[in-house]
Amino acid sequence: MRTADGMADVVAGRAPAQPLLKGVGVTILFYEASTRTRVSFEVAAKHLGASVVNVSSSGSSVTKGESLLDTLRTLEAEGAEMLVMRHATSGAPYLVAREFRGNVLNGGDGWHAHPTQALLDLYTVRAHDGAPAGWSLAGRKVAIVGDVLHSRVARSNVWTLTAAGADLWICGPTTLLRGFDAWGLAGVGGKRPFTVTSDVEAALRDADVVMTLRIQKERMAGGLLPSLREYAARYGITRERLALAAPGAIVMHPGPMNEGVEIEPEVANGPQSVITEQVANGVPVRMALLKLLREAPG
Amino acid sequence: MRTADGMADVVAGRAPAQPLLKGVGVTILFYEASTRTRVSFEVAAKHLGASVVNVSSSGSSVTKGESLLDTLRTLEAEGAEMLVMRHATSGAPYLVAREFRGNVLNGGDGWHAHPTQALLDLYTVRAHDGAPAGWSLAGRKVAIVGDVLHSRVARSNVWTLTAAGADLWICGPTTLLRGFDAWGLAGVGGKRPFTVTSDVEAALRDADVVMTLRIQKERMAGGLLPSLREYAARYGITRERLALAAPGAIVMHPGPMNEGVEIEPEVANGPQSVITEQVANGVPVRMALLKLLREAPG
Amino acid sequence: MRTADGMADVVAGRAPAQPLLKGVGVTILFYEASTRTRVSFEVAAKHLGASVVNVSSSGSSVTKGESLLDTLRTLEAEGAEMLVMRHATSGAPYLVAREFRGNVLNGGDGWHAHPTQALLDLYTVRAHDGAPAGWSLAGRKVAIVGDVLHSRVARSNVWTLTAAGADLWICGPTTLLRGFDAWGLAGVGGKRPFTVTSDVEAALRDADVVMTLRIQKERMAGGLLPSLREYAARYGITRERLALAAPGAIVMHPGPMNEGVEIEPEVANGPQSVITEQVANGVPVRMALLKLLREAPG
Repeated sequence: MRTADGMADVVAGRAPAQPLLKGVGVTILFYEASTRTRVSFEVAAKHLGASVVNVSSSGSSVTKGESLLDTLRTLEAEGAEMLVMRHATSGAPYLVAREFRGNVLNGGDGWHAHPTQALLDLYTVRAHDGAPAGWSLAGRKVAIVGDVLHSRVARSNVWTLTAAGADLWICGPTTLLRGFDAWGLAGVGGKRPFTVTSDVEAALRDADVVMTLRIQKERMAGGLLPSLREYAARYGITRERLALAAPGAIVMHPGPMNEGVEIEPEVANGPQSVITEQVANGVPVRMALLKLLREAPG
Repeated sequence: MRTADGMADVVAGRAPAQPLLKGVGVTILFYEASTRTRVSFEVAAKHLGASVVNVSSSGSSVTKGESLLDTLRTLEAEGAEMLVMRHATSGAPYLVAREFRGNVLNGGDGWHAHPTQALLDLYTVRAHDGAPAGWSLAGRKVAIVGDVLHSRVARSNVWTLTAAGADLWICGPTTLLRGFDAWGLAGVGGKRPFTVTSDVEAALRDADVVMTLRIQKERMAGGLLPSLREYAARYGITRERLALAAPGAIVMHPGPMNEGVEIEPEVANGPQSVITEQVANGVPVRMALLKLLREAPG
Repeated sequence: MRTADGMADVVAGRAPAQPLLKGVGVTILFYEASTRTRVSFEVAAKHLGASVVNVSSSGSSVTKGESLLDTLRTLEAEGAEMLVMRHATSGAPYLVAREFRGNVLNGGDGWHAHPTQALLDLYTVRAHDGAPAGWSLAGRKVAIVGDVLHSRVARSNVWTLTAAGADLWICGPTTLLRGFDAWGLAGVGGKRPFTVTSDVEAALRDADVVMTLRIQKERMAGGLLPSLREYAARYGITRERLALAAPGAIVMHPGPMNEGVEIEPEVANGPQSVITEQVANGVPVRMALLKLLREAPG
């Protein structure tokens, strides 16, 4: 967090550039579509002076059926020293990290994790609090509302938010609130370190932070959701519902949003929204991660 | 035009590099296929020292149905200070420019406009004239021949050429010469500031500049054209037809060409063609636009 | 080869950077999917300080049916001084090289040739030998095993390996060992300068170098191969078969591999494999080619 503060100063021009990755080969290997995360990493790496190469699944040997590890060894042999990757298979970056000589950053893997998103989310909450020394979320209520079952963002946020001491509430239709046992999150005494509910008013009441998640239309097909309209009516974050939260509560969304479904446009673009700050904070947080990984001992 | 002259000197190595966009984030956001225009902007921005990020619709969040404005806010938050965009929807860059903090350059929007193409076309005519001080097209005849109805290039050229004082003639099959009332081009006394004709010989006679437009095969399906062969026979720019133009007349095409349809290969590659100069001039003209926009007061 | 030695020192940080292409426009124009070769050229050009522009067939005017020569003239006019290209049509880069003002590097054309792959393969064999002065392959046995008929890699290697004096053996199913007469390779006395066999044991026996080629599944459809399983059983490079080769023989593969088909995973990743070195050597070999071409007299 503190390293990211320094990077934010660099990005804003308040501190001189830090070409810490001058001449370092950073390869961005994305097997899934992305603008937000891919560009954020590219901009972050270029701010640090890295030599960035983009590889996406279209136009690459992926279409020839080359294995992930074969691709990895190829990119490594061609000079990739740091690898940022997104993959549809949960766990793929961990497999890669075991084999790759340099550093691997997970840009999102399947339904599993999106750790840099969770870190930039945490950074955004802290920045909104003024980033005081010794900051934590102890005693603060955070509500995550939406399709938790399929959300790598939710999963990574559960890890960081509980580690930061938050009183975490997870809310959504019961069909999308399953599978927590597989998350390996049992806390003290075997209890889950968060509250699960389908009662959106209970989740939002007195919350300091409201995180909404993208609802994907393809979930309808699987029978997990009745309709987008029904979801919006029962769980969408509206101005009325947001009024239940603590005064000054902030609203977050990892994007891309379905405005009018999981979040009302007036909320997404309203005074309590920090959604744009989340995106902006992605650059310094990822710069900090690149720097810290690069400087970490072997 | 004069700024572009200076940039042409930089490109040719006759003047020192001008890193006016050193460290400035330029994002090239193209929702339609392009080599010519996309690469031209990329080269132009790099000549000025910008940090260029490419985003195309394949491989981006566009495939997730993210809204254009959501993408825009994302790119802005990630550090885009100047945005070059192409979009299939007429008007999209204007919508974006109202919301975007930095500068927006239209790289082509639907059937509406392609302003940088028209400016490089004008620059090319002027350069061919030796770029004298006080240059204008007053009294010079310019003929645009082809599918004017669907051509954003034609529309932008009508604006610049009439502003430069040209005696402008627009020519094509009557099915493709419609919709001018929507162009907002009424001149003095409510009269259109150009002549419309389906008589290609009349249009070409004594013309100083002949601009041909790409004929797209998909227009056949709509019944707007009988066949490419028929179009080529009736409207294609051949050596015979070009002989009707003024001595030393120049031939232009915005590309990509269908050689043998709207233009005979011998004309496209002949001594009167300035088609390659058009492409080459794209780089200094776009450098000039980047510079002027960047320096313009808020 | 010696120039590539110097470039390898630069890549490894043992020699200072050589910004020989500072400000030079290098365009990488790939009409076929590639990670390995595309990234290798991009990294090589960036090591030399070039300004690199990527153009792939997806997202480019290629999808508008623009002709190759039109694209070429466009890229040239936009400042491309060196062009690296891959194309599905045999001979395309040679056509382009006749028209292009600058240098053209063939990154693979149809079934015809992949010359930089053959050069990096030769460099890899030489490096494995310790790169002694006056190095040649005279008297050394090299076996190429696989789908020679469709392999541009095999064809280019035949040229370089026979030029280097190797005792070259070519091996595969008879259905894939045709068409040599078209290769223009008749040696002294009209004899082919290599031995052709379907006996994989004969080909491997006492070989110093074993090159395997990718078997493409689509060949099955054409009836040229019975099944991948059958191919693996009859021609796959296994540890048992490799034991027939000379002690210390090396195993090569141009990638991407079908492990378990043309090569056993234990061989691909075993102590005799130099497959990763091949990929790594691609960067200095291509740097050397860029340098030598750039410095060559017109």
